[in-house]
Amino acid sequence: MSARPPQAQDGGPRLDQTDGEQRIAIVGGGLAGSLLALALARRGHGVDVYERRPDPRRQDGAAGRSINLGLSKRGMQALAMVGLLEQVLARAVVMRGRVIHAPDGSTRYQPYGRDAGEVLHSIDRNELNRLLLDRAEALPGVRLHFEHRLLRADKARRELELDSPRGRLTVRPLWVAGADGAFSCMRRELQHGERADYHQEYLEWGYKELTLAPLADGGSAIELTALHVWPRSHCLFVSHPNLDGSHTLTLFLPHEGEESFATVRTPEQVAALFRRHFPDLQAMLPGLLEQWASHPTGSLITTRTAPWRFDDWAVLLGDACHAVYPFYGQGMNSAFEDCCVLMAALAARPADRAAAFSEYESARRPHTDVLAELSKANFVELRQKVQSPWFIARKRLDLALNRLWPRRWLPLYTMIAHSTMPYGEALARSHRQERLLRTVLACALAVGGVGLAVAALGVPV
Amino acid sequence: MSARPPQAQDGGPRLDQTDGEQRIAIVGGGLAGSLLALALARRGHGVDVYERRPDPRRQDGAAGRSINLGLSKRGMQALAMVGLLEQVLARAVVMRGRVIHAPDGSTRYQPYGRDAGEVLHSIDRNELNRLLLDRAEALPGVRLHFEHRLLRADKARRELELDSPRGRLTVRPLWVAGADGAFSCMRRELQHGERADYHQEYLEWGYKELTLAPLADGGSAIELTALHVWPRSHCLFVSHPNLDGSHTLTLFLPHEGEESFATVRTPEQVAALFRRHFPDLQAMLPGLLEQWASHPTGSLITTRTAPWRFDDWAVLLGDACHAVYPFYGQGMNSAFEDCCVLMAALAARPADRAAAFSEYESARRPHTDVLAELSKANFVELRQKVQSPWFIARKRLDLALNRLWPRRWLPLYTMIAHSTMPYGEALARSHRQERLLRTVLACALAVGGVGLAVAALGVPV
Repeated sequence: MSARPPQAQDGGPRLDQTDGEQRIAIVGGGLAGSLLALALARRGHGVDVYERRPDPRRQDGAAGRSINLGLSKRGMQALAMVGLLEQVLARAVVMRGRVIHAPDGSTRYQPYGRDAGEVLHSIDRNELNRLLLDRAEALPGVRLHFEHRLLRADKARRELELDSPRGRLTVRPLWVAGADGAFSCMRRELQHGERADYHQEYLEWGYKELTLAPLADGGSAIELTALHVWPRSHCLFVSHPNLDGSHTLTLFLPHEGEESFATVRTPEQVAALFRRHFPDLQAMLPGLLEQWASHPTGSLITTRTAPWRFDDWAVLLGDACHAVYPFYGQGMNSAFEDCCVLMAALAARPADRAAAFSEYESARRPHTDVLAELSKANFVELRQKVQSPWFIARKRLDLALNRLWPRRWLPLYTMIAHSTMPYGEALARSHRQERLLRTVLACALAVGGVGLAVAALGVPV
Repeated sequence: MSARPPQAQDGGPRLDQTDGEQRIAIVGGGLAGSLLALALARRGHGVDVYERRPDPRRQDGAAGRSINLGLSKRGMQALAMVGLLEQVLARAVVMRGRVIHAPDGSTRYQPYGRDAGEVLHSIDRNELNRLLLDRAEALPGVRLHFEHRLLRADKARRELELDSPRGRLTVRPLWVAGADGAFSCMRRELQHGERADYHQEYLEWGYKELTLAPLADGGSAIELTALHVWPRSHCLFVSHPNLDGSHTLTLFLPHEGEESFATVRTPEQVAALFRRHFPDLQAMLPGLLEQWASHPTGSLITTRTAPWRFDDWAVLLGDACHAVYPFYGQGMNSAFEDCCVLMAALAARPADRAAAFSEYESARRPHTDVLAELSKANFVELRQKVQSPWFIARKRLDLALNRLWPRRWLPLYTMIAHSTMPYGEALARSHRQERLLRTVLACALAVGGVGLAVAALGVPV
């Protein structure tokens, strides 16, 4: 950003656009914002990224959210688009499936897919963000502005007003992408005075992160190349592996109620919770009580909204327009996929950005709405169903049918995590498969019944 | 409000509470706010009403929204609670039913209920608001503060910060009721930092009001004691009668699209719309084009949210927590009913206001959520179904069954408009009746079928 504050041409507030070039602004330098900056800069655009927080590369890891992410096909496609896939995978731990930990300490393994290609990759959110920022900054067109908080977007004047360490600042970008998260200021400004639909709901469960340290020899206390789940009826632990052999454990527990973050507060209460539901984890977590007391409790929000765009000047992506619960592991992946869809729409409509934004929203919003529902439903699956014999048998049947007819039969999880089929199409196809399976099973039962009856009656066939 | 600005006891901003008495604040002096002020003052409470707009009694009618309201049982019950029912009814026009105007100019009458007790009352919103404000102000405990806009509510300090003609003002009420409408500031402040659910959606249809003048002799151009509806597939006129023989017509038309507020703009386009869909109205509206050009186009919003309350200090009512579309005529009625439920909860829990607020929300929110859905569905009914022969036959059957078994068989409309049965219970009962009717009809058909078969086979019975 220029250090010379020039006078605005029209007598309005001073503009920080000394060179008069038409640059794109991205509000938010998180995962979606920094990836979009990379993608746009690689196409030759000048991009300014305005991030509210300080530069995460100059902080220690504890400053941001440390939650791990499961990178799957959609996210990988986007990273490949900006030429970063290999470097990201080198920093990730492969997760081949889920290990389910029962209350009695026994475990059961559920693979994520039918082969080594259908796996997830556990990556540290902060490390991925730092890598994306480094690569974006290395491109000539990109400028990163940290501690720049959006105050107002004037749609009529096409200006952004920002609060920065050097005071108030007004910029007039060619267009703006809002990638500033679930509580997006850019969304609020974009929708101001419009007939906007907006839905937000919080989960009754909050979360707390704990770290399971590596063993003294650097090994992992539990199977490294898997996601681990400790499903209990009203609470849930999930763990993501890290390269150093540690695991990031996330406990999901109700905010209020009998056994909840509101009632589990003292060391005795924490110890009792673990003794009752997670004795195996308790044994592996010597620093549990200190971690519990010092780590914050987070909340989880789902949002749906429309519109995502204003004319040819502003567009939203990622959590700013569709925050989802983390239970399908698709938050980052869907935000990265937004970048791909937006870039494709811009490429298809080089002369009409308003149409490109409109097509991006039309192509994308129905599918992220479906993702919101899938992510809610998967919380029930993770908490309750993964232990049910029927569910386990069904998962096995799904994978067996998928091995028999790899093109014809695709389990829903496979379509969501290991393909880039739009979410809504994946769900519709899963429903069709479900109906087919039911019909086949009903026919099989009927034929079997007739066979039994024939056998019982002694009629020769 | 006192003219002496004293120092705050705790060194904070100055407080405008010189007499130290513990008064209740109501944010919003519209229908819900002024009715609640009346109800609280009649129980001996001191009440301050803070209204953002100027005093409507010192403005001409055009300043506010002029839309008419259909007062039904729930609203009447609330007005009776504050001793105002007779005075309000004296200012209202009885509507005994709907007159449906077909495209060919023919009309059909549908009564609202089975007798003269089951009618609606058309009343002018502004006149009702002025009456409520007059009566509230006449009570010793009530003070009205116009042009007082809520800026902030500090839940920790239990203070409201307001912008007033005399500058910034901080007050510390005993507790606060937020009755400040669909875009409630009090809701935003109450929910700030909480895990609040919030849903808003706009209807794709907007509205425009037009006035059908009385005849030269003071008579009404159309039947006075009815609501009139001109249903068309994608647009709709509704009219409410006024005491002077005029009718307030409301056109509901899509905001965007082929025939919409976006495309119907020039006098020619307006005339063409009326010629095509409302030729009878066109003939009765000589000043149509002037009215069209000078009257604004409004938008319609539905909101659902939670929580409605904070501890023992703040609570929401009316549009501030459940704005609905106007198609069931229950917006004001449900807001007034909120007052009754809140007053009853406070009376039942005189020593525990937090519990009273909690019970009010638990008792009320499930039902206003149902009302939101009913109000959406009734738009389809008004626009499309009221003309269908099946719908008309069904309505007649419903009323006939209601006449036969007045306690046992209650049409849904009757339960919503002419009873105070909670909305959710009304809907559930309607579903039960529907199932019963279907079973009875199926049995009748089966018996009839057997009878026919027996007759056809010539078997003597």
